[in-house]
Amino acid sequence: MTRVNLPETEIPSAWYNVLPRLTSPMDPPLHPGTREPVGPDDLAPLFPMSLIEQEMSPQPWIDIPGEVVDILRLWRPTPLVRATRLEAALGLPDRVRIWFKDESVSPAGSHKPNTAVPQAYYNAKDGIRRLTTETGAGQWGTALSFACAQYDIECMVYMVRTSFEKKPYRKTMMEVWGGQVLPSPVADPNHPGSLGTAISDAVADAVAREDSHYALGSVLNHVLLHQTVIGLEARDQLKIAGEKLPDVVIAPCGGGSNLGGLALPFYEDTEVRLLAVEPSSCPTLTQGRFEYDFGDTAGMTPLLPMYTLGHDFIPPTIHAGGLRYHGDAPIVSKLVKDGRMEAVAYPQTACFEAALLFSRTEGKVPAPEASHGIRAAIDEALAAKESGEEKVILFNYCGHGHLDLAAYDDYLHGRMVD
Amino acid sequence: MTRVNLPETEIPSAWYNVLPRLTSPMDPPLHPGTREPVGPDDLAPLFPMSLIEQEMSPQPWIDIPGEVVDILRLWRPTPLVRATRLEAALGLPDRVRIWFKDESVSPAGSHKPNTAVPQAYYNAKDGIRRLTTETGAGQWGTALSFACAQYDIECMVYMVRTSFEKKPYRKTMMEVWGGQVLPSPVADPNHPGSLGTAISDAVADAVAREDSHYALGSVLNHVLLHQTVIGLEARDQLKIAGEKLPDVVIAPCGGGSNLGGLALPFYEDTEVRLLAVEPSSCPTLTQGRFEYDFGDTAGMTPLLPMYTLGHDFIPPTIHAGGLRYHGDAPIVSKLVKDGRMEAVAYPQTACFEAALLFSRTEGKVPAPEASHGIRAAIDEALAAKESGEEKVILFNYCGHGHLDLAAYDDYLHGRMVD
Repeated sequence: MTRVNLPETEIPSAWYNVLPRLTSPMDPPLHPGTREPVGPDDLAPLFPMSLIEQEMSPQPWIDIPGEVVDILRLWRPTPLVRATRLEAALGLPDRVRIWFKDESVSPAGSHKPNTAVPQAYYNAKDGIRRLTTETGAGQWGTALSFACAQYDIECMVYMVRTSFEKKPYRKTMMEVWGGQVLPSPVADPNHPGSLGTAISDAVADAVAREDSHYALGSVLNHVLLHQTVIGLEARDQLKIAGEKLPDVVIAPCGGGSNLGGLALPFYEDTEVRLLAVEPSSCPTLTQGRFEYDFGDTAGMTPLLPMYTLGHDFIPPTIHAGGLRYHGDAPIVSKLVKDGRMEAVAYPQTACFEAALLFSRTEGKVPAPEASHGIRAAIDEALAAKESGEEKVILFNYCGHGHLDLAAYDDYLHGRMVD
Repeated sequence: MTRVNLPETEIPSAWYNVLPRLTSPMDPPLHPGTREPVGPDDLAPLFPMSLIEQEMSPQPWIDIPGEVVDILRLWRPTPLVRATRLEAALGLPDRVRIWFKDESVSPAGSHKPNTAVPQAYYNAKDGIRRLTTETGAGQWGTALSFACAQYDIECMVYMVRTSFEKKPYRKTMMEVWGGQVLPSPVADPNHPGSLGTAISDAVADAVAREDSHYALGSVLNHVLLHQTVIGLEARDQLKIAGEKLPDVVIAPCGGGSNLGGLALPFYEDTEVRLLAVEPSSCPTLTQGRFEYDFGDTAGMTPLLPMYTLGHDFIPPTIHAGGLRYHGDAPIVSKLVKDGRMEAVAYPQTACFEAALLFSRTEGKVPAPEASHGIRAAIDEALAAKESGEEKVILFNYCGHGHLDLAAYDDYLHGRMVD
């Protein structure tokens, strides 16, 4: 069996919450003014109470509302695929097997709608009529625009300027779903922007308006929680395929949400290696410091305990816009700090080389973000081919590159640099 | 059940050949010089003998080679989906049900790889090292580039100039799979081009080179034959869902291949209406004449018995580039002439209005070509809602619009005209 589809009845009915399962508790976020731990009330201007509760919940499982499952059903469960033609091209023996979870089949083309839908749902339930957010490559902005359209909520997206200019069609896709889009930083048209600046713009907008909340596409605990449907489905699908637990679970890491979504449900299987893949040009986990830092550039968000390159770090304008974040999810950061998760960094040309091989064998053109996971999966496979060990590799195919073809044009015509 | 996935073992093992089942025989293609019926030898400079045999085969079922199924398995069987959220938005009662077959999940994003793969396979088997072809919107060119990459064949694509200029990323996608792309007509840089001119360029190239054959993405009998996997799967999936035979089967029609693919396996169910949907600006079936005409603009191909607007007809540059063809598949033309198939034409703004509703409810952004089928499906549904009849509607979601967002930008900002 090379592609495992679950019936729609097998969409998980509860999210996997790693917080109560951690071997030591998380450090709390701190208020940006007082530097005291933030409480639910501090977050209430930005988020509905259900999401704030999820952010700190001690429950090991959190029910997914039926109204959310009704929308997830449009594309979930997503396929689990054995990359047999990639394996053949790499000359792998059968003891080295590569599986990927295909999150590219969602409306926005990535894993992002998995959390956009519940976030829009909980906000709508609380009577919120407008959401603001940031977006890097545009995946999150399209996902939230789609989700807001399902609940008749207005969606205001601040898009990192360099992506806004390089990817005009992401803006159109957001508009197809009724979203509005502005480049960030709004105040400085010559600034390339970063996820940090866009978060600042979106938070400032939400705080200024009574009818508005803010939605974040990664980093926070509740975002990673919503993404655990990925790993939960993958576990079931591997079992159905008669496959053993993976030896290594791999995903690209920007803010950490697609990584957390695939990897956290394997957290308690301590024999399973968890591997984060980041770009060399924004090497948060591999070269950052673990400390309290702001989630945004302007210093408006709570201070989070995380690996960071400094909240004023503006990464080079690589094509994987979704990986250009100065920090990392506190959960991911803690796992790396505790030695439960590994991290590796790659330059983008090495990732595009892998993406091209993947396109030509598996027939899917990956997003630049997704190409990082593919690169690492290939290198893990080649290492096992060499060493003689058995190795089952699972990686997250977190998004397609149909709106990233300009990057491929650069790569194919020798215009891409590291 | 709202989404029916078949296991990969249920990919059809044989294509459905409508030719021996027709109530009266097809008129033969005629040689462009002698105007005598063409024989296999006349076609041999362009096509491998296996495809020529399929073009005229009296066998009701034709086995799909295992080497072809091995590639189809990358995305087939494709899902059959009940459009429940679209139905709800239209206020349909449960007696009116809309299903669609999702061909957008293929590598190229449309139904086109269904025939690109076997065409590349049979050519490779005959030792051909290079294929030339035409492409309109770019879907066929990407599909053939992908297929050629699977068999190490060079792929030379002549792309209708207006699409080449409007959709630069389709070119990039072809290059990702190793294809080469030139705008057509090559000889006249001021000409917008049409499928007819591009076919002329591709045929001239193939005829001039010993190592090259030509591949056509639609129109011919063997192309429609290869596409019947769509309708065969859909029949099985409807049964699994406990659904009755559809009352009407709908698909957009340019050259006729996605329509033939979905509709032909329902040919013998005479109670099932078959409905072709074409653009008002290229109304071949609804306003053309049924007569012998050339398949291309330059008059190099055999004369085909079909509805045609004249081989020198250059349609306006609408966004649905894949539907800009002066003629129609002889099989489709015969079915319409015999009264077995109906045809309707829509202006593009009406189609984009339908596409936007579909995007916001079902979460998929359709190709402009696909939007024509959606428009007709919606109108059939609304008519049944009004009349009180039960109606099961099946349409072909023949491709996504991820590379057509410029068209949506035009539509959303009031720049689209009919």
